[in-house]
This record gives sequence, C-alpha cells and structure tokens, in this order.
Amino acid sequence: MALIVMKFGGSSVRDAQRVQNAAARIAAEHDKGSDVIVVVSAQGDTTDDLIAKAAEVNPAASPRDMDFLVTAGEQVSAALLTMALGKMGYRAVPLTGWQAGFITDSNHGRARIRRIETERLENEISKKNIVIVTGFQGVNRYDDITTLGRGGSDTSAVAIAASLKAEKCRIFTDVDGVYTADPRLVPTAQKLEAITYDEMLELATLGAQVLHNRSVEMAKKYNVPLEVLSSLEDKPGTVVKEVAKMEKMLIKGVAKDDRIMRISIVGVPDQPGIAYKLFSLLSSLKINVDIILQSIGRDGTKDITFTVALEDGMAAVQALEERKESLGFTKMVWDDNVSKVSIVGAGMESNPGVAAKMFEALAEANINIQMISTSEIKISVLIEKASSAAAVNAVHAAFEAPQ
Amino acid sequence: MALIVMKFGGSSVRDAQRVQNAAARIAAEHDKGSDVIVVVSAQGDTTDDLIAKAAEVNPAASPRDMDFLVTAGEQVSAALLTMALGKMGYRAVPLTGWQAGFITDSNHGRARIRRIETERLENEISKKNIVIVTGFQGVNRYDDITTLGRGGSDTSAVAIAASLKAEKCRIFTDVDGVYTADPRLVPTAQKLEAITYDEMLELATLGAQVLHNRSVEMAKKYNVPLEVLSSLEDKPGTVVKEVAKMEKMLIKGVAKDDRIMRISIVGVPDQPGIAYKLFSLLSSLKINVDIILQSIGRDGTKDITFTVALEDGMAAVQALEERKESLGFTKMVWDDNVSKVSIVGAGMESNPGVAAKMFEALAEANINIQMISTSEIKISVLIEKASSAAAVNAVHAAFEAPQ
Repeated sequence: MALIVMKFGGSSVRDAQRVQNAAARIAAEHDKGSDVIVVVSAQGDTTDDLIAKAAEVNPAASPRDMDFLVTAGEQVSAALLTMALGKMGYRAVPLTGWQAGFITDSNHGRARIRRIETERLENEISKKNIVIVTGFQGVNRYDDITTLGRGGSDTSAVAIAASLKAEKCRIFTDVDGVYTADPRLVPTAQKLEAITYDEMLELATLGAQVLHNRSVEMAKKYNVPLEVLSSLEDKPGTVVKEVAKMEKMLIKGVAKDDRIMRISIVGVPDQPGIAYKLFSLLSSLKINVDIILQSIGRDGTKDITFTVALEDGMAAVQALEERKESLGFTKMVWDDNVSKVSIVGAGMESNPGVAAKMFEALAEANINIQMISTSEIKISVLIEKASSAAAVNAVHAAFEAPQ
Repeated sequence: MALIVMKFGGSSVRDAQRVQNAAARIAAEHDKGSDVIVVVSAQGDTTDDLIAKAAEVNPAASPRDMDFLVTAGEQVSAALLTMALGKMGYRAVPLTGWQAGFITDSNHGRARIRRIETERLENEISKKNIVIVTGFQGVNRYDDITTLGRGGSDTSAVAIAASLKAEKCRIFTDVDGVYTADPRLVPTAQKLEAITYDEMLELATLGAQVLHNRSVEMAKKYNVPLEVLSSLEDKPGTVVKEVAKMEKMLIKGVAKDDRIMRISIVGVPDQPGIAYKLFSLLSSLKINVDIILQSIGRDGTKDITFTVALEDGMAAVQALEERKESLGFTKMVWDDNVSKVSIVGAGMESNPGVAAKMFEALAEANINIQMISTSEIKISVLIEKASSAAAVNAVHAAFEAPQ
C-alpha cells in the first residue's frame, strides 16, 4: 500500500473552516486507497501568541521552557484535524511528537531529529487509521520536549516520509507552488512545474519561505519526492526531485532574505588560524555563517566580514566581544540594514554570463553590491535592505527575456 | 527534607500577574527549605475555550480526541509558571502528565490514576529543582493522553503527595478556605479552621466546589494532610485531616448541587433483581447514581426514582430506554429542574434533632422536599431548582443559632 505523507502549515488550519478544508484533502487522499500520515503545524498565529504570553512573564525564558510552551499549539491543531476527520466518518488518531517517536538531540528551540521510533506510526497505519502528527516537535533522550525550530513541521513531514519510505511527501501551504520569485514582489513571477533538490535548497536557504531548508536537505538525502501545493485549490503544485526537466529559463528563481546581519571584525592579526578560531566559536554556538569576505592583509592586519541570520546576530556579537582579546581584533561593527538577493539555477556555473547579467541589472537599478557569494547553482549579493524589492524585480526582469 | 505539594487552580494562574503571584508563593515555600512539587491547572477559561474550538469542528468529538486537545491547556500554564520562577532566579522544571509518570486507565475524559512512576519526579527533586506538573492528565498503557475529568488537578496533586509521602498538600484557590456554606449565597457563612476527610468528602460530593471529591477520597485513603487556602492572600486556610477538633457548630456546612437530574422508571414488576439490573447497567456505563427512592410495590409493580449528575443524565435515559423491555418498566420520566441541598457534620447520626431542624427550616421557607437521603454525616434533600439558594440560606440560618 502506498504511503503518502501530507503536511499542513499554520495558515492551512488557521480556523474551523480551514481545518475542514484540510480534512477534506486528507479524506480524498485516503479514498484513493493510500495510507496517510499527516503532519500539522500550530493554527495561524498560535505560536506567536504563546511566545507573547511567555514574554509577559519572562522575556528571557529558557529555550527548554519555550519548547514546553509552544508545542501545545500543534497539539490543538492535531486534535481539531482529527475531530474534523472523525465527523466525516474517517478513523484518525492524533499523536504528539513523543507519541510519534520523534527522538531529537537536546538543542532546545532548534533540535535535530536523531531518529524516529516508528512502531506506533506503523501500528496505526496497519490498523488503517489516518495518523495526525504534531509537527515541529520531539523529545530528547531525557524525555524533555524539544522543537525543531521555525518551519520544522516540514522537516517532521519529510523525516516520516524518509523513515517509512513514503511514495510522496506533499506540503500544503497558502501558495500553490514554487515561483521564480515571490509573486507578492514580482508580478511576473512564474510557477515552476519542477525543481531539483539543490535548486530548492538554495531557494529555501535564501529565504524563499516555501520550504524549510532542513526539510529539503533531508528529502535530498533520502530521495523523498516532495510536492509543494495549495491547501485551498485542488491543482498541481511544484514537484521537487532529483532531476527536474529542463525549463526554458536558465535560472529557477530569484529570492531575497531580509533577516540577516552583517558583522565585521576589524584589525585582526594577519596570521593563520584566526578564521578557524572565529568560525569554530560560532559553530560551537550553533550559529550558521553565510557569506564570508576576508580582506587582503595590509600592515599586518586584516578584516573579516560575514553574515549570520538576524536572530543569531546579537548572540554572535556578544560571543565575539567576549573573545576580543584572544581573537585580537581592534573593532567590531555590525549592521542589520542589509538584504541578500540571490539567483538560483542548475547549470549556472558553466555560464559566466549569468553573473554579469545579474550585476548589470543591479547597476542599472543603481543598487550597490556590498558582498558577493557564489556556488555551483546560485549567486548571492548583499545590498542595503531598502533596495531589496527593487533588486529582486530588476534581476527577475533581466532573466525573463529570452536567453 | 520535607516535601510540600502545592496545587494552583485555573483562576490562580489566569493571567501574567496571577502567574507571578503563584510563583511568589512557590518561591516562599521553597525558601523555607522544603522540596516543592507544584500541580497547575489550565489558565482561566482556557479549557472552555478549547472545548468551544472543538465544538466548531465536531460537536461529537471523541473523548480521546478531547483529551488530546484540552491537555494543551495545562502545558501552557505549567510553562508560564516555570518561566516566572526562572525570572525570580529559581530552578524549576515543567513536566506534562506523561513526563511526571501519571499512568491511568483508558477511560478518556474521566480516567483513574493507576500509578505514578515517580522516577522523574524524584530525580528532579534530588537536584533541588522545583517541579511544575500539568494537573488533570496522564497517559494510558498505550501511551494515549488521558484526563482525570473536571477538577482532576486536585487529584493529581494528592496522588503525588501520596506517592511521595509529602508532608502536606496545599490546594490554592480563589476562596480562602472551606465555608459553612457558599459565601456568595449565604453572607453569614463562616470559614472552618479544620474539617475531617469524611465531612469534606460529603461537601465535595455535594457540590461545594472547593475540592474535587476524588482528591479527598484519595487524601483520606493515604492520609495526606490537605490544606485549602487562598492564592491571593497569605493567611491560613482550612485544614482537612483525619480528626478535626470539635467546633461549636454541629454541622460543618450546607451545600447545594444544581447539576443533577432526577429519573424515574414507572411500573417496574415488583420482583427481585430489577434494582440490581438497573444499577449494574448504569455502573457499567460509569454513571454514578446518588439518591435512590423505591416505592412500595402495589398491584405487582413499583417505581424506582434516582438522581445522577446532569452530564450523565441523557446517557442514562438513553441506556434505560434501550433496555425498556428487559427492565420491564412502562414509562420513564426525567427532570433536571431539581437541586440537592445537604448539611454535613460528623456526629450528626447521634442527634436526631438535626434532620427535624433542617426539615422545619425548609417547611417554614415553604420549600417542598421531593426526596431525602441520609448518611452518618449528612442529610440531603431534593427540591426544585428555583428554591435552592433560598433553601441553603434557610437551613444555614437555622443552624447558626446556638444549639
């Protein structure tokens, strides 16, 4: 029997009407004869509301206690979805993260899944029950409740699909697929029929906000076919798989990420090992570093500039300030008034004209490039935040023209 | 080290201010050098709000799914209380029902605790952590989430106190103790310094709404000293223990219960075994029967009248209707326009004047008595609902006068 994993995000279950819509989609999948496991996020703004409640009591609450708090949100949505299916005459069973066997590390607030103990899931499936699992959560080895971080429900869904070798993992959301750019920013953005894991990964990492990047990494690793589609309309979405058929456009998408911070440490001794010290420190704090720029040494010193996610920014600054002496820098500056704009597309590396075209489009729009980073399938630039929407449009327009 | 169990009800944690009040009470207890385990209910109207959400989606949701839903409420309040203590510099740890080791039967919505696996609780206490446990909930042997029913948080608290041989179980609520009658109904009601388990049990069962009856039963069984006190003011409450010192008043309290239904089956054959059939049927449905009245047989038939909790009423009626033939009754009538008014006090049985005094007070207030039930320490009468407040006042006034 084919197993389908379906994931519904917070906006797809935000009220009773949406819960009933989602239930209807699930029921339709079950009616096709599939085994169905559903992963669900907290309703609408529930998580934010819970975070606000916490802030009233203790603005510096521990990540462990925050995890204990916010996981209540998915418990509510999973219960409601189960009830809606029950009303339609379907046998469904709701499971929390620990009940579904999600064992994670102890990194509260951004835990990684170690394994899924699938006994309970398999048992429910064998009884032909539709299983409704709370996304985004698990327990560590001490039975403390953990969360996978924002967007972690996608990861929960892919992890189940990988563990149980599901035929497909369908991610239902309030957009109807992956677009060449954010349609709210770029009216001419086009929906993609298919995209490769690597391309999706770059887009997800770059803030396209359609899929959580860890979920795409995991889907690639275990070769789980993903589909991103609308929870509101019954039409095909975008399929994410190993090899996507070539589309006319060379680039698959333009994305921007406004939630980043640029940090520079200035006057570092031009000696080996400094960069290692710096980035191993950040790594030990589980802070991911993105674009890195190191100046050429001059007068025996150099500068190192890098970007981190905005939410990690001040933690990084504080950690560096505490190690000022051992790192040997004279000054640190940081700036969150920046955005990263990127283009993504397989085959880009063999076409040097792509980068030139992107930079030309930005120059014509009078947008200054602060930093540049490239990989095999993407080119990213750091620009001032105020220009980010204009930059996305300019770049998208440049690549819309026939190549 | 003395262990104190503290329980805070929903109104005692209904907003950030109340949560901080509760945290201050907990901190003060901990500062005395006690080990402290706290049991907390869901905030204010949270449980009712969740039930309303469920009703929108499926008014006939299964008890299992309701349990899964509503237990999210205590998870939120336990997290917030932990955070408030954290802010004050105290090490606290929140635990759900399953984390705290509450193993129950599978009777969803009104489960009974089978045992508490106290390893985690003891481990946290040994680390000098204040433990914050979600009240009212546990898991069955299949790891499904269960609830103990309304007021079950009291039971959770007493169960922990009994399992870990706590020195005292302190129940914090929005009243400051147990009164001779509901002070909202009877302005002259007096607070009791002490009361016996049996007296409290009768009052709890009779709807005094101060303590959940199962919690009192359990406290009596394991001899757990209880104290009911205000979460808002720091002053002594009412102690519930095996032997309370004699107070001046013969009766300890007057209580009323408006949430009952009277059911009569008429024209039952006057043969042995009918009552057994009737009440074993109700017992198999976990419906408790309270006052029972059986008419004297006449013309070979008799009538049986009894009362049940209002929420069980229609289930009882339906079950009886389905067995109409085998029970052999001709007609069934039911009425929820009734109240039970009771007086409670040890030593009552050796003082026949008490019943007479109660009936006299009701007669003078022109209130008709439909049914009467007595035990060693209580006398209950069934009257029409509209007169219940007047009845409580009349009876309370009668016993206020010097004996």
